[in-house]
Amino acid sequence: MKYVIGLDYGTDSCRAVIVEAETGKEIASTVKYYPRWKEGKYCDPKKNQYRQHPLDYIETMESSIREALSESPAGTAENVVGIAFDTTGSTPVLTDSEGTPLALLPEFAENPNAMFVLWKDHTAIEEAAEINRLAKAWETDYTAYEGGIYSSEWVWAKMLHVLRDDAQTGRAPSLRDTAYSWTEHCDWMPAILTGKQKPETMLRSRCAAGHKALWHESWGGLPPEEFFTALDPLLSGFRARLFTETYPSNAKVGYLTEEWASRLGLSTQVTVGVGAFDCHFGAVGAQITPGAFVRVIGTSTCDIMVASYEEMKDKLIPGICGQVDGSVIPGMIGLEAGQSGFGDVYAWFAKFVNKSIPELTEEAEQLPVAESLIATDWLNGRRTPDANQLLKGTIMGLTLGSTPAMVFRALVEATAFGSKAIVDRFLENGIAIKEVIGIGGISQKSPFVMQTLADVLGMPIKVAKTEQACAFGAAMFAAVIAGVYAKVEDAQNTMGQGFLSEYLPNEANHKVYLKLYEKYLRLGKFTESELSNFKS
Amino acid sequence: MKYVIGLDYGTDSCRAVIVEAETGKEIASTVKYYPRWKEGKYCDPKKNQYRQHPLDYIETMESSIREALSESPAGTAENVVGIAFDTTGSTPVLTDSEGTPLALLPEFAENPNAMFVLWKDHTAIEEAAEINRLAKAWETDYTAYEGGIYSSEWVWAKMLHVLRDDAQTGRAPSLRDTAYSWTEHCDWMPAILTGKQKPETMLRSRCAAGHKALWHESWGGLPPEEFFTALDPLLSGFRARLFTETYPSNAKVGYLTEEWASRLGLSTQVTVGVGAFDCHFGAVGAQITPGAFVRVIGTSTCDIMVASYEEMKDKLIPGICGQVDGSVIPGMIGLEAGQSGFGDVYAWFAKFVNKSIPELTEEAEQLPVAESLIATDWLNGRRTPDANQLLKGTIMGLTLGSTPAMVFRALVEATAFGSKAIVDRFLENGIAIKEVIGIGGISQKSPFVMQTLADVLGMPIKVAKTEQACAFGAAMFAAVIAGVYAKVEDAQNTMGQGFLSEYLPNEANHKVYLKLYEKYLRLGKFTESELSNFKS
Repeated sequence: MKYVIGLDYGTDSCRAVIVEAETGKEIASTVKYYPRWKEGKYCDPKKNQYRQHPLDYIETMESSIREALSESPAGTAENVVGIAFDTTGSTPVLTDSEGTPLALLPEFAENPNAMFVLWKDHTAIEEAAEINRLAKAWETDYTAYEGGIYSSEWVWAKMLHVLRDDAQTGRAPSLRDTAYSWTEHCDWMPAILTGKQKPETMLRSRCAAGHKALWHESWGGLPPEEFFTALDPLLSGFRARLFTETYPSNAKVGYLTEEWASRLGLSTQVTVGVGAFDCHFGAVGAQITPGAFVRVIGTSTCDIMVASYEEMKDKLIPGICGQVDGSVIPGMIGLEAGQSGFGDVYAWFAKFVNKSIPELTEEAEQLPVAESLIATDWLNGRRTPDANQLLKGTIMGLTLGSTPAMVFRALVEATAFGSKAIVDRFLENGIAIKEVIGIGGISQKSPFVMQTLADVLGMPIKVAKTEQACAFGAAMFAAVIAGVYAKVEDAQNTMGQGFLSEYLPNEANHKVYLKLYEKYLRLGKFTESELSNFKS
Repeated sequence: MKYVIGLDYGTDSCRAVIVEAETGKEIASTVKYYPRWKEGKYCDPKKNQYRQHPLDYIETMESSIREALSESPAGTAENVVGIAFDTTGSTPVLTDSEGTPLALLPEFAENPNAMFVLWKDHTAIEEAAEINRLAKAWETDYTAYEGGIYSSEWVWAKMLHVLRDDAQTGRAPSLRDTAYSWTEHCDWMPAILTGKQKPETMLRSRCAAGHKALWHESWGGLPPEEFFTALDPLLSGFRARLFTETYPSNAKVGYLTEEWASRLGLSTQVTVGVGAFDCHFGAVGAQITPGAFVRVIGTSTCDIMVASYEEMKDKLIPGICGQVDGSVIPGMIGLEAGQSGFGDVYAWFAKFVNKSIPELTEEAEQLPVAESLIATDWLNGRRTPDANQLLKGTIMGLTLGSTPAMVFRALVEATAFGSKAIVDRFLENGIAIKEVIGIGGISQKSPFVMQTLADVLGMPIKVAKTEQACAFGAAMFAAVIAGVYAKVEDAQNTMGQGFLSEYLPNEANHKVYLKLYEKYLRLGKFTESELSNFKS
């Protein structure tokens, strides 16, 4: 029997799953929380600054794989043939010429700007705005395949921001002096395991590059050097030390080095695949096919579709997070969208009112549709449609009789309206949606949220059986690169875990929600016009 | 030495103060909480239904006066010469032909519609809207001296609402069958003490009638019977059993009956004055003069000014709660405005987030001006400017980093913006404001709120020394009707308690607030346009 390991790096933890490659049967699974992150280190929620230390990733990789192996039957470790990674993203870090994240150098060990800038970090709002202005003024709009709006959650904005932020301090050595290149979290993990950490040898994920780094085949890879130096001379020289080629996840990076084989308790025969972002692998793990709208629903949502070249011919979908050849399933266009805040909004509110989410849920589901309260869901900005991280949340319709459960219900509805805005964007652009598939914590934990979502969308939602769709997606790709399957669709068919439940929309509620959705759009429009000059 | 008793009925309690009539020296003061109200009886906050049982008023009158007397030096009771009342309002109740509130009849003892409808009850929103439509269509706009907009907080809307609500039930006897007339709380108290409870003999307060009951001299008292029957035949006949004459509070109602003298432990020589609403007496107690904007700041605010006939000549100030000859100081026009929610908003929020107001205040005053959050203060509707009880509160600019203290600060600022909207309405209509005087719980308890208010208004605010300005105003009028003073201005000069402190505006904050106020107005405008068709 051959085994594969799927490694899934989420916002808070690293999950390892060991799976029988030929059957999909789960052998062991472990979760390890990032120790420094858990302490709140290097973060400043008031500034929306979220940074992660590279050692958090390394330590949890080792402990999660070792523990999973220790829970597996004897002989498992020797028969592991492949390993693949997914991570959050865009979660980049500046590196030196060896490909080492700067925070691993003694002089930057405690410097948040030298660490991975987590997907949800919104410190680079100004830089993203500059990229957008420049792209619109340039001959070619390099954001075209990323929805036409560059986001502060994405790599170029983030790298420029940390370089600028550091330059301001006047400290020597500066990050600019020391930084040679940068890497995404999902590229760095396979690179270190295979000894290909140097920027020149590192294989870059198509998924990360195409959705977040302005990479596109039609303009020969990354935008030209002049584009970046026009943006800020601080960026000069990086482009040449990054990449031109990118790879879908059916590509091999290499084999475990002796050092890493020994550290992980595996053999040097283990194939390591090109990484990708978690939701893309999650969609694969949840058995995505053309026409399925797959949502990874957690603190935020990431929404994934795949479409054939034929269906996507000459289509540029505005305001989503991009359309990238092979970013999900090789040979198809991967489409990405998502909401910047989903479960995070509920968690914020629960803390705000000093209650628990289950407590609020229990009360809220007894209430009728919140017809007198309307909210926008942009407490963490808006990722799609039409990225705008300056947006904020609004709650309208409060009275002295408004209870926490009533407002909670309105916020759940608001996040569902935010979902509908994305679904509508796909439909308006001629992408057929045949079914919705939910994965991620909330899809399994909150029937209330899922039912509300089905009611608002007016569509049935299937919930994937596995709680580890991303890790399973990684395992499927690991099986492909190890040669167990010719393509990932075959792995999906055999290794897929099926579905747990299905939420059918309540038509009466759906009708009410269609009216409320109009109010949501009006409130959103007002909020947007107001916040666009909020600093004035 | 002669003594007078001021009796002040607030939302939750009855306060009695015994004062030396010639000096203003306080002899004793007691507060008694309404027992049924305290238990939450007859109320339904979700429907904004707030009712008070007449026995709550009678029992607390007896106990507060008796206890105050027992704390006074021997001989005080015998030398009490006058008593005057203020109450909340409009707080009316249906009565039978004897002037007895229907809830005191056995068949209606537990019927909330047969009880006093407290000022803040908003069940009559629909009825107020009908009155407004009819008044605008009528030859004479009978709302002209009440700001041009009739409110659901006022008597005609409330009486019509309880009659309709009762008629719907089909119960017999109906309230309509039994009701002969109605009375305001401030008219009922002096009436029962003097044996003039019958509708035909009851003296009606100019303050209550002119501000809330559409009474005006220029159309000969109340609007014609046809107006009310056009509104709803349920109202037919009431007008003739109400009143044509009304009286300012320097008018005597009569003397204590033997029964009441004995129940209260006073003599039958005690003169009883015409009552008025609490904030009007509060303004007198806080030494109002022309040019002073006096605010009673508690759960809601009531704002009072007085202006000479000369200054008010041909002026109709739109959107306030009215301009009534003698409603505050006889011989001057009394102007009333106010906010439907003030301290109530803070109390709601504290409960909402499960924290205390002092705790929130302590954190909020450390924060800078809440530039990124903006709220409207209409959680209990809007009393002025431009009454609209359908309005609700909005909070805009929420992020995952928003804390309860930040939102609390924004709500405090929102209530101050609501105050500025009223001040601006007076200024725009040519009423000069020379100073602001604060009375009521919040003015003494919350330096944070008062400083914010001064900063937003850009005006100094003096805080009255007495915590019992309303009761003192009542005591001043009691001294006038007992003949100690010729007019209430003389009583103010001698009996006034002076000022405790003054808040000076911080000019830097004021500048920031002027900008934020523009946002408040824009948010308000949007909220208003949105909520006006919210039920659609």
